[in-house]
Amino acid sequence: MKFIHTADWHLGKLVHGIYMTEDQRYFLDQFVQLVEEEKPDAVVIAGDLYDRSVPPTDAVELLNEILFKINVELKTPIVAIGGNHDSAERLSFGSSWYRKSQFYLSGKLEIDIHPVQINGVNFYLVPYAEPSMVRQLFGDDTIHTHQDAMKSVIGKIEDSLNPNEPNVFVGHAFVLGGKTSESERTLSVGGSGCVGTELFEPFSYTALGHLHSPDAIKHEKVRYSGSLLKYSFSEAKQEKSVSIIEIDEKGQLDIRSRSLTPKKNMREIEGYLDEVLDPGFYEKQNLDDYLKIILHDEGALIDPINKLRQIYPNILHLERKIENIDKKKKQFFTSVKEEKKSEIELFKQFYQEMTTSEFTDEKIAVMTDVIKNVLKEEAMK
Amino acid sequence: MKFIHTADWHLGKLVHGIYMTEDQRYFLDQFVQLVEEEKPDAVVIAGDLYDRSVPPTDAVELLNEILFKINVELKTPIVAIGGNHDSAERLSFGSSWYRKSQFYLSGKLEIDIHPVQINGVNFYLVPYAEPSMVRQLFGDDTIHTHQDAMKSVIGKIEDSLNPNEPNVFVGHAFVLGGKTSESERTLSVGGSGCVGTELFEPFSYTALGHLHSPDAIKHEKVRYSGSLLKYSFSEAKQEKSVSIIEIDEKGQLDIRSRSLTPKKNMREIEGYLDEVLDPGFYEKQNLDDYLKIILHDEGALIDPINKLRQIYPNILHLERKIENIDKKKKQFFTSVKEEKKSEIELFKQFYQEMTTSEFTDEKIAVMTDVIKNVLKEEAMK
Repeated sequence: MKFIHTADWHLGKLVHGIYMTEDQRYFLDQFVQLVEEEKPDAVVIAGDLYDRSVPPTDAVELLNEILFKINVELKTPIVAIGGNHDSAERLSFGSSWYRKSQFYLSGKLEIDIHPVQINGVNFYLVPYAEPSMVRQLFGDDTIHTHQDAMKSVIGKIEDSLNPNEPNVFVGHAFVLGGKTSESERTLSVGGSGCVGTELFEPFSYTALGHLHSPDAIKHEKVRYSGSLLKYSFSEAKQEKSVSIIEIDEKGQLDIRSRSLTPKKNMREIEGYLDEVLDPGFYEKQNLDDYLKIILHDEGALIDPINKLRQIYPNILHLERKIENIDKKKKQFFTSVKEEKKSEIELFKQFYQEMTTSEFTDEKIAVMTDVIKNVLKEEAMK
Repeated sequence: MKFIHTADWHLGKLVHGIYMTEDQRYFLDQFVQLVEEEKPDAVVIAGDLYDRSVPPTDAVELLNEILFKINVELKTPIVAIGGNHDSAERLSFGSSWYRKSQFYLSGKLEIDIHPVQINGVNFYLVPYAEPSMVRQLFGDDTIHTHQDAMKSVIGKIEDSLNPNEPNVFVGHAFVLGGKTSESERTLSVGGSGCVGTELFEPFSYTALGHLHSPDAIKHEKVRYSGSLLKYSFSEAKQEKSVSIIEIDEKGQLDIRSRSLTPKKNMREIEGYLDEVLDPGFYEKQNLDDYLKIILHDEGALIDPINKLRQIYPNILHLERKIENIDKKKKQFFTSVKEEKKSEIELFKQFYQEMTTSEFTDEKIAVMTDVIKNVLKEEAMK
């Protein structure tokens, strides 16, 4: 039995003020293509289909269209759960109808989780839920952390789980820990938001959503697929992919991943402004990418963002190398402290640190006037 | 062929700060009961299922539950469209899946409207659309009013309509006019928001939503079902119902209506405070109703709303008979103008008009002090 594991589509996401819907559409069209090629027995989406409880309408239309293509046109069963970004109730609307087309959508955690059976594999759908909600659902006041909550949910599932069949857990949680030693495990389950991998032991495979990197945990059978796209510059260096899982009747796994090409990559460029604006540099680049540019230049630059935007239209973030500015500032303020200088001398020094132009006599005259007036006003208060 | 015509459920509506969801649930449970008794071939809901584009989650859950009961449990086909209060895109999500269960939901107007065929009757689903949206959809710059837009939509439908079959139009619009003369028709289609009944001539029956009274237009085959509940005090005197339509293969109609009992009625009470608080009066009333109370008392009343709320817990609105207050005010301000009185005399007069208590010597002393201080401050400015 073969299924594709994906998660964290975050449809409707805004990144640095830009709606990613068109990029998401481009990516999802490739995903549909991949489903067509792989012909899996199911597509598993482990939460955060939307980026927020009330997504923009074009995100709603996109999700509808993509799921319809996969489920109805390609006749591929879909197993999907709500994540912490989805609204449990809104996502759940209509799910009773979808089941008839083998589109199994669980938006809201229920106390009795009946597995969805597809080609001999049992899928247990556990949408994201706050510990307080699980506490109420189970009527168990001892549930406080996500670890407690997940333990109760899995404990309940185990009551009726047949360990001789292949069982897949589909969840959306902050799972930490690995295949390693006891000490490491303890360490990584410190925070109350985290859930330990050991809880998922009863399952042949655990398809997770929430963390955006496919390498978030190293475990042979408890895995994140990673997000659909890069959604922040902290993810710039991650390789995004979907996982193709083959599972036999004994629960043995064969896992590989396939990456998709984003319309516009999200990446960082670092260097001096002149370098970055040099055709010899930028002609080798995909100029449409979403960029964070870190400039090494010291001193003032005249309107660097607009100069950069003429070459790189999708620059999302511009940063100056902090160490340099800090060093300069430190030098400046240290010198202020050390020597007693006149206001105009201080300003001249400041001007020279912060710009590359000359502090001409004309400028000195203007500033002298300004300083005189300020001092006069101060004296009159 | 028999169908039930209803509209304007407005799930998630707030009336005077109170969510009506529980009242709507009570009503809809009766509606499900009625569907079970009548065993219609279809239930038609002519728009405004929700009260707003992003309804509260309990309204989403209620709609899901009720439609599931009707469509899946009672195996009754549903024909529903979006109204001006619904979000076209949000409501449309999943509609391709619903069709498989004969739940036909059209949230967003499409240029080609293929009729839904149920037991020999063709239903044309025309969700609410702004004229500008229809103008764009049809690429026709001459469309400016709702009348223009509806004419285009119906003209397009007529291209493929078979007049020898029973055809039902399902729409959400502000339709005015009647079965009468040319002059009246012209009159009633004055505003650009209105649509004339004559446009619906090609159809055997037109099931409308938008206006909340079933008597909004008097026409034998173009009809509003009226809203589910009373949603404002202006509807207090309306009798709410759903329409049961029987239509034969020639398009001949048999129409009757069935009313449902609200959990709490919405109505007005008028009288003097003492009367309204008299057990002889209120013991005959359903005290849980949503009430607007109009008091006839003149002069000030001490905390009337709390006194009333002890008897009538769901009082939503308290009003004083305007004419009386106006008369009083007029008397007061006229007298001010006519005679030149001292400040304390004016205040005494005002106090006596507005309260029923005595303006004692002690009170006079306090007010004299206040007035003195105010005058002193004024003089110092």
